[in-house]
Amino acid sequence: MKKIVTFGEIMLRLKPHENERIIQTDRFSGLYGGAEANVAVSLSLLGDHAQFVSKVPLHAVGQAALVSLRRYGVDVTKVLQGGPRLGIYFFEKGASVRNTSVVYDRAGSSFAVSQAKEYDWSQVLKDTSYFYFSGITPAVSPEMRRAVLEACRYCSKHNIKVVCDLNYRGKMWSPKEAQTAMAKLMPYVDICLAHDEDFEAVLGIKAFDNDMTRGIEQKDTFIKGMKEITAKYPKCQTVASILRNIHSVEDSEWTAIMIDHGQVFEAPVYQMHVWEGVAAGDAFGAGLVHGLLHKFSKNEMLDYALAASVLKLTIGGDFNLVTDAEIRAVMGKQSSKRVLR
Amino acid sequence: MKKIVTFGEIMLRLKPHENERIIQTDRFSGLYGGAEANVAVSLSLLGDHAQFVSKVPLHAVGQAALVSLRRYGVDVTKVLQGGPRLGIYFFEKGASVRNTSVVYDRAGSSFAVSQAKEYDWSQVLKDTSYFYFSGITPAVSPEMRRAVLEACRYCSKHNIKVVCDLNYRGKMWSPKEAQTAMAKLMPYVDICLAHDEDFEAVLGIKAFDNDMTRGIEQKDTFIKGMKEITAKYPKCQTVASILRNIHSVEDSEWTAIMIDHGQVFEAPVYQMHVWEGVAAGDAFGAGLVHGLLHKFSKNEMLDYALAASVLKLTIGGDFNLVTDAEIRAVMGKQSSKRVLR
Amino acid sequence: MKKIVTFGEIMLRLKPHENERIIQTDRFSGLYGGAEANVAVSLSLLGDHAQFVSKVPLHAVGQAALVSLRRYGVDVTKVLQGGPRLGIYFFEKGASVRNTSVVYDRAGSSFAVSQAKEYDWSQVLKDTSYFYFSGITPAVSPEMRRAVLEACRYCSKHNIKVVCDLNYRGKMWSPKEAQTAMAKLMPYVDICLAHDEDFEAVLGIKAFDNDMTRGIEQKDTFIKGMKEITAKYPKCQTVASILRNIHSVEDSEWTAIMIDHGQVFEAPVYQMHVWEGVAAGDAFGAGLVHGLLHKFSKNEMLDYALAASVLKLTIGGDFNLVTDAEIRAVMGKQSSKRVLR
Amino acid sequence: MKKIVTFGEIMLRLKPHENERIIQTDRFSGLYGGAEANVAVSLSLLGDHAQFVSKVPLHAVGQAALVSLRRYGVDVTKVLQGGPRLGIYFFEKGASVRNTSVVYDRAGSSFAVSQAKEYDWSQVLKDTSYFYFSGITPAVSPEMRRAVLEACRYCSKHNIKVVCDLNYRGKMWSPKEAQTAMAKLMPYVDICLAHDEDFEAVLGIKAFDNDMTRGIEQKDTFIKGMKEITAKYPKCQTVASILRNIHSVEDSEWTAIMIDHGQVFEAPVYQMHVWEGVAAGDAFGAGLVHGLLHKFSKNEMLDYALAASVLKLTIGGDFNLVTDAEIRAVMGKQSSKRVLR
Amino acid sequence: MKKIVTFGEIMLRLKPHENERIIQTDRFSGLYGGAEANVAVSLSLLGDHAQFVSKVPLHAVGQAALVSLRRYGVDVTKVLQGGPRLGIYFFEKGASVRNTSVVYDRAGSSFAVSQAKEYDWSQVLKDTSYFYFSGITPAVSPEMRRAVLEACRYCSKHNIKVVCDLNYRGKMWSPKEAQTAMAKLMPYVDICLAHDEDFEAVLGIKAFDNDMTRGIEQKDTFIKGMKEITAKYPKCQTVASILRNIHSVEDSEWTAIMIDHGQVFEAPVYQMHVWEGVAAGDAFGAGLVHGLLHKFSKNEMLDYALAASVLKLTIGGDFNLVTDAEIRAVMGKQSSKRVLR
Amino acid sequence: MKKIVTFGEIMLRLKPHENERIIQTDRFSGLYGGAEANVAVSLSLLGDHAQFVSKVPLHAVGQAALVSLRRYGVDVTKVLQGGPRLGIYFFEKGASVRNTSVVYDRAGSSFAVSQAKEYDWSQVLKDTSYFYFSGITPAVSPEMRRAVLEACRYCSKHNIKVVCDLNYRGKMWSPKEAQTAMAKLMPYVDICLAHDEDFEAVLGIKAFDNDMTRGIEQKDTFIKGMKEITAKYPKCQTVASILRNIHSVEDSEWTAIMIDHGQVFEAPVYQMHVWEGVAAGDAFGAGLVHGLLHKFSKNEMLDYALAASVLKLTIGGDFNLVTDAEIRAVMGKQSSKRVLR
Repeated sequence: MKKIVTFGEIMLRLKPHENERIIQTDRFSGLYGGAEANVAVSLSLLGDHAQFVSKVPLHAVGQAALVSLRRYGVDVTKVLQGGPRLGIYFFEKGASVRNTSVVYDRAGSSFAVSQAKEYDWSQVLKDTSYFYFSGITPAVSPEMRRAVLEACRYCSKHNIKVVCDLNYRGKMWSPKEAQTAMAKLMPYVDICLAHDEDFEAVLGIKAFDNDMTRGIEQKDTFIKGMKEITAKYPKCQTVASILRNIHSVEDSEWTAIMIDHGQVFEAPVYQMHVWEGVAAGDAFGAGLVHGLLHKFSKNEMLDYALAASVLKLTIGGDFNLVTDAEIRAVMGKQSSKRVLR
Repeated sequence: MKKIVTFGEIMLRLKPHENERIIQTDRFSGLYGGAEANVAVSLSLLGDHAQFVSKVPLHAVGQAALVSLRRYGVDVTKVLQGGPRLGIYFFEKGASVRNTSVVYDRAGSSFAVSQAKEYDWSQVLKDTSYFYFSGITPAVSPEMRRAVLEACRYCSKHNIKVVCDLNYRGKMWSPKEAQTAMAKLMPYVDICLAHDEDFEAVLGIKAFDNDMTRGIEQKDTFIKGMKEITAKYPKCQTVASILRNIHSVEDSEWTAIMIDHGQVFEAPVYQMHVWEGVAAGDAFGAGLVHGLLHKFSKNEMLDYALAASVLKLTIGGDFNLVTDAEIRAVMGKQSSKRVLR
Repeated sequence: MKKIVTFGEIMLRLKPHENERIIQTDRFSGLYGGAEANVAVSLSLLGDHAQFVSKVPLHAVGQAALVSLRRYGVDVTKVLQGGPRLGIYFFEKGASVRNTSVVYDRAGSSFAVSQAKEYDWSQVLKDTSYFYFSGITPAVSPEMRRAVLEACRYCSKHNIKVVCDLNYRGKMWSPKEAQTAMAKLMPYVDICLAHDEDFEAVLGIKAFDNDMTRGIEQKDTFIKGMKEITAKYPKCQTVASILRNIHSVEDSEWTAIMIDHGQVFEAPVYQMHVWEGVAAGDAFGAGLVHGLLHKFSKNEMLDYALAASVLKLTIGGDFNLVTDAEIRAVMGKQSSKRVLR
Repeated sequence: MKKIVTFGEIMLRLKPHENERIIQTDRFSGLYGGAEANVAVSLSLLGDHAQFVSKVPLHAVGQAALVSLRRYGVDVTKVLQGGPRLGIYFFEKGASVRNTSVVYDRAGSSFAVSQAKEYDWSQVLKDTSYFYFSGITPAVSPEMRRAVLEACRYCSKHNIKVVCDLNYRGKMWSPKEAQTAMAKLMPYVDICLAHDEDFEAVLGIKAFDNDMTRGIEQKDTFIKGMKEITAKYPKCQTVASILRNIHSVEDSEWTAIMIDHGQVFEAPVYQMHVWEGVAAGDAFGAGLVHGLLHKFSKNEMLDYALAASVLKLTIGGDFNLVTDAEIRAVMGKQSSKRVLR
Repeated sequence: MKKIVTFGEIMLRLKPHENERIIQTDRFSGLYGGAEANVAVSLSLLGDHAQFVSKVPLHAVGQAALVSLRRYGVDVTKVLQGGPRLGIYFFEKGASVRNTSVVYDRAGSSFAVSQAKEYDWSQVLKDTSYFYFSGITPAVSPEMRRAVLEACRYCSKHNIKVVCDLNYRGKMWSPKEAQTAMAKLMPYVDICLAHDEDFEAVLGIKAFDNDMTRGIEQKDTFIKGMKEITAKYPKCQTVASILRNIHSVEDSEWTAIMIDHGQVFEAPVYQMHVWEGVAAGDAFGAGLVHGLLHKFSKNEMLDYALAASVLKLTIGGDFNLVTDAEIRAVMGKQSSKRVLR
Repeated sequence: MKKIVTFGEIMLRLKPHENERIIQTDRFSGLYGGAEANVAVSLSLLGDHAQFVSKVPLHAVGQAALVSLRRYGVDVTKVLQGGPRLGIYFFEKGASVRNTSVVYDRAGSSFAVSQAKEYDWSQVLKDTSYFYFSGITPAVSPEMRRAVLEACRYCSKHNIKVVCDLNYRGKMWSPKEAQTAMAKLMPYVDICLAHDEDFEAVLGIKAFDNDMTRGIEQKDTFIKGMKEITAKYPKCQTVASILRNIHSVEDSEWTAIMIDHGQVFEAPVYQMHVWEGVAAGDAFGAGLVHGLLHKFSKNEMLDYALAASVLKLTIGGDFNLVTDAEIRAVMGKQSSKRVLR
């Protein structure tokens, strides 16, 4: 089975212990993560050959980032080494009405200052079935926009499917910048993931009123938005979205929808008690790609991706450390809610 | 007041910090527990003379297990010392849709390889009012089945009441093995605790459809099952059960029922936010025995046992570290939901 | 802008890790707090000049208490140093039906044994706009009752507004003692905070039936009680209360009401998942004073204070470590329930 | 074999993590200890029946203190429960030229305010072979001086040997107070432990020039001092001392001498790398009493006590958690300095 | 460059925090290690293709063991998965005169009960330059003796060099058993590591008087012993030994000698302050193999191996987490003893 | 008494727990520090008015840096807020032959990209007696070189003494760059601290052969170097140096020398067991400035500074958390090497 290549930045994530605020703590847990790295870990844990492509510095912190991926089986042989620093993000867990918040310290990272020409796609993308990137990668720098574009062109010529999670980050670029950049990339995308504000911020398509407490209620406008995408970018005939009603940091409902060659698929709704609300979109994306790779039915694929995604909400850190059996237990209601012993 | 003797295995329980998964952690909290040890700790904390009988190795880890019991006042003077190892179980706390799970590493323990003849019941059971074991003890080995049988026979001759929590463990033996073994022991049992699948797996009595989200709704079939027990084993005229609707790892409703000499008793329903869903059955069993010993009314006894049980859901580790006053505060709604200061 | 002076005791707060009980732990987190110290920290973090007045011992633990305040900008230049010890309280976090509980070890502290004459109010209260104390301070000792009375008299003569949070503590004094003492102080109070049992225990006014699960339902009797206060103590024309329905340690609804010169104001109701249910009243009091100082409208003032208060429920430790922007985000529903990134 | 009774105070010991200073920490490890409690733990771990007598408060912290002793087998059935608080001491570990330091917060403890008459010695001292107290107990309060005196008188009449570790604490009383008090107690003492400044501060005997870097060099004056004791108090024919050259917090040499009915015994010198330099005197005292109880030869007794004492320097907390085999390994040079595997 | 295959057991290593004893702790750090796994990690970190062969259970703990190796780049594709359990060892760090000690709980592990025939050497040892095992592997079981013998025979036929670290473990087998087993294996060994008691216990050659405080002083008898080995087993023309004077848990001197085709090589002596005295022999072995693989001069090879070995003494856990540059800095005295910044 | 102003960068310092390496850890302790910030903390703890000038970002991490200083009383009212990020350094503690090492991640910090003109020296330096900077500040950027120069010029005109710790950092600039920059600044310096390689790297003066194991032995060449400084820069008539023999990460000897208006002063030699070998130079500098400010004799000043410096070696983190009394205890040999109790 051919490999999946994901391309993006991996960062050191520093999180105060338990529920502490940054201003009061002197202890951080130091894990590593980033959208495309997270996807690679998920796929590797599901048994696929996942290769992560990026650039990290040569010092101990850069090595630790690599080690965090290799640990879960991700192929890091194509990660470039060098440059000034590893990006960092500080993660402060919220509670109830106090939102989880993130302080980015990613400017000037080895990845951010790397050149498009450093990535030799003809080398990297040999024997690849899927190429995965999120909207964060082109948001990093004009050079990375170029790198993604070059990769997409290579894929296009060599029959490698391109998956893009739009993943808008308002702290990294404006809607206008995002739209300009993505307009060049979308024509190459085969499978598109778009959540919440992504539709409008990245593609200028109005699908969501930005009220996170009632995302599921807006299913119809989301479907309309998804159809607009497939209409505008004919290569892209698969679009999937997570829909959520977020009531507080801990409590929310989660579901997902997908349009595939015009047909709409819907997953069940999960009532969730959330441990850590990050990287669930990456878990979803990985679930979809795994389903595509193994030719799951569309229904199974969507259910599988959603189950993977909600499992991520129960796990600390960026990586979705679950097995295929655990995902299927959640899907199939075999999750008996009891201690297994 | 005469002592209560409990007989079974104590293990080292290794739990990753907070919510971590085993695969990502390098930190374990190391506590000790086991069904019968837990019961002994509960009774000791309530002021009773509780004696735990078992076998642990002579090395530091075995000593630490003893120390963990002696700490809370349990009489460990009859615990045998020697043999190869202490059993271990790894405990991974779940969240929301991800179940709590347990990895057993108990084979070959000092207790598991001990011989029935090592336990001198005429010595151990002197001045005893109640003898307590759970279905886990005979599940450990054929020798331990024999040891329990010998203890039961001694009790029968010396007017010591026998309490058995059926406590089926599918990872330790099959329903068929369990039924064969327990058929020999049940005729000696005076008080029987049976929860959930125990009825069918251990006694072959169909009382529950295995849907943990609606245990309370099946109260009638449970009562029917309890009556079957008292009919089949006439010595056993007291049977008690915890009933639960488990909605997720955190959220569930708890109640309990008891049949005593034909009369049915019911406790109130508690809406619980669960910290750690283990050993609540042991807390319940200890509450019942404490009530029997101190001649509580049947209603009080059942309410007390249930209150003890739900308190355990708020505490980490296998031991139910609560006082009589705390149990009564929960029972009597004196739990004002406020900080006491 | 003139300073706010708060006067009371600061203690070392020792809390077992996570959910551990005192009897099982050998690890404590050691933070510092006390009603008036908490108010000072809140005001300082909101940009006001807050001065805390107290007495702490000269040794390392006393210094650490000072340092904990100075860290967040509180002016501690008027804190006396000397005397035997720092008060301590042990804080054990509850869960579900098991209440959070506190063991006080504050007797004989440097503050408790300090003399009224050690506090030179003409010096301390120079350039002060508000003087803040809670009912805990006079509960500490007869000398501290005297000290508060002297401070109030000084305020009265120098046009400094007096704010009092009644804050009844049943472990420190009886309702009778409280009523006797407060009867002398209330005539000087301009703004009064009264919650739950405070009405009856401290002022002998029946406003609440002590059922914490339905405080909000008793709004009308609370308003009646507030009006009694303003009638009895004509100087006191502002009274505010937090009302709560507490369902369990984790789950509750919170709202607040205020009467000001006869007019009643009401805040919205928050559905809260509580991380740590302490010091929310202090956060509320600080919010009110901040609003008074900056001449917020009465509606804004109450909403602001309540939003500050519910934010405290999401934070560990006694101090409400939030910014003005965070309070306003909660007030204005700008809290989008999402990770900000 | 008859029991040993030790009488004194047990405190909560709060120590910052690793090497942190109190002023910088928000984490404490919370263990329990006190000279006489430490001795009881040592004896219990060596297999003797050791009973600790004291008074602790009824709340959770008092219970935790009891639990800490019962854990290691100490008989706490005669500990009184009640009174205001448990004494506390803050322990800050030094390094190199920075001394370890202690902040006492023990005033007003349940023990300190207990009455002599609460201790019923005829009840407590039944079936006792040795009664052990340190100079800390009479230093606590005049009432405790009286209690010790009454216990000594009872011992005198009932042929119970009295062991006293002079244990001068300059933060608790002055030499003059100590001398006055001990002059009344010494006539009852059979075995006396005196270290360093104890000779002069407690008994007014000049044996040591207070230069801790050269205690071993002053062996001769120590012996002279010990002889003065046996001359002055003829009942006391056994006196033992630890002698040390302390070069830094980590590095020191340790030895011990003993005079018994006029004969002098000397132990070997240990070159120590110290982990935590507390409670080594208590470990020494326990070793001596264990030797007396089991009729070791005088040489063996002294060597055993010293080996126990130096082992304590390698262990964190007040309790000397070692076995007889470990003590003998150190004595007999069987300590091969290797990992045992 | 061809791969190196190491064959042995990997265990979960549970170590109390800091300096705690097992009997007092409830916290363990949980790392993984084992002689041959340690060697594989070292080689992988030095850039070689190291493959570890073993058997681990399929559950989460077994996966975590694999993950711990894959993290540092070890090839685990040939590790068998299945069987009952992962071996465990408890590691208690000593201090000064108190020895570090180990409690083994490795009986009945998946590796220990695996069959020789499960290891398909013709598959595993393809493209291999060195096969590495320690004396621990044959000590595990008769089946593993057979497995090693079969591997050795395969190596012999296919020109793969065999490296054996004698590594005697008295807790696993007797000298007699060891000698019988190793007599069959030694004829296949090309490079032999023998330390301390290994000579006598495993080969019956008297080279060392077992006084660990003066190992270096016995260099001549060690050399004599090494020559006996090369005489007795002509295939084995390279023998290397670490020599140590161990003064206490923290303080020791380390050096190494090697005989190669009759010529003796000696390394410098390092004065060490030891952080954790385990797995230094494995680090040494890995250093030697790395030198062999890259054709270092004999002097360089020995110095390199010793420098790697002493670096291990400064690192916690079984794995020697150092780089080639760090080893060379220690070798070349470029270790400037300063903070690099 | 007039204030002391220090000017430089403060960073987040991330250190793995205990002895862990960055590659193996997922836990960091997060403290804050930087040469000039450290000096300010020391002076503030000694009772002086110390003001730190710098620039930090407006987000939570920047606020936490400020809070870390305000905690110990440092005046941070002149710290600018804004810009992209806070500099970070990773600190990995070495052991024995493995050096402590640092990974800098300080490029692009708010301070590094700040403009000289943002610092309004006529405002900042009002009422200042001493202005302190280290060679790190001009090494940060050409703008900061300019800022320091402007500050120095202001000082020169307003009779403010300038103290410079040369503090060469080879990872920040080359000797050539350093010499060019410092040649412009040295004419303004009144008191110069120069250690080890600083002489040659920063000033081109050969005083030390770079063998850190024998710094003290090179006292004469150091004195010669110091005299060259005073000759070359006549304004600078006070030069002080720490001299060290560093034997390993833990063991070293420390002393200090000073030349003042031609007269040479020498301090005693301390034999140190080092806990953490950072920021001892800053502690020394602060000690000197404190002595200057309070007009200590030259001998006392040097001894005081050295005692402060060696105390820092016993404390974790960048800040020297000691009191005047503790420094004097070390100076006067009143450090009795005992537990104070």
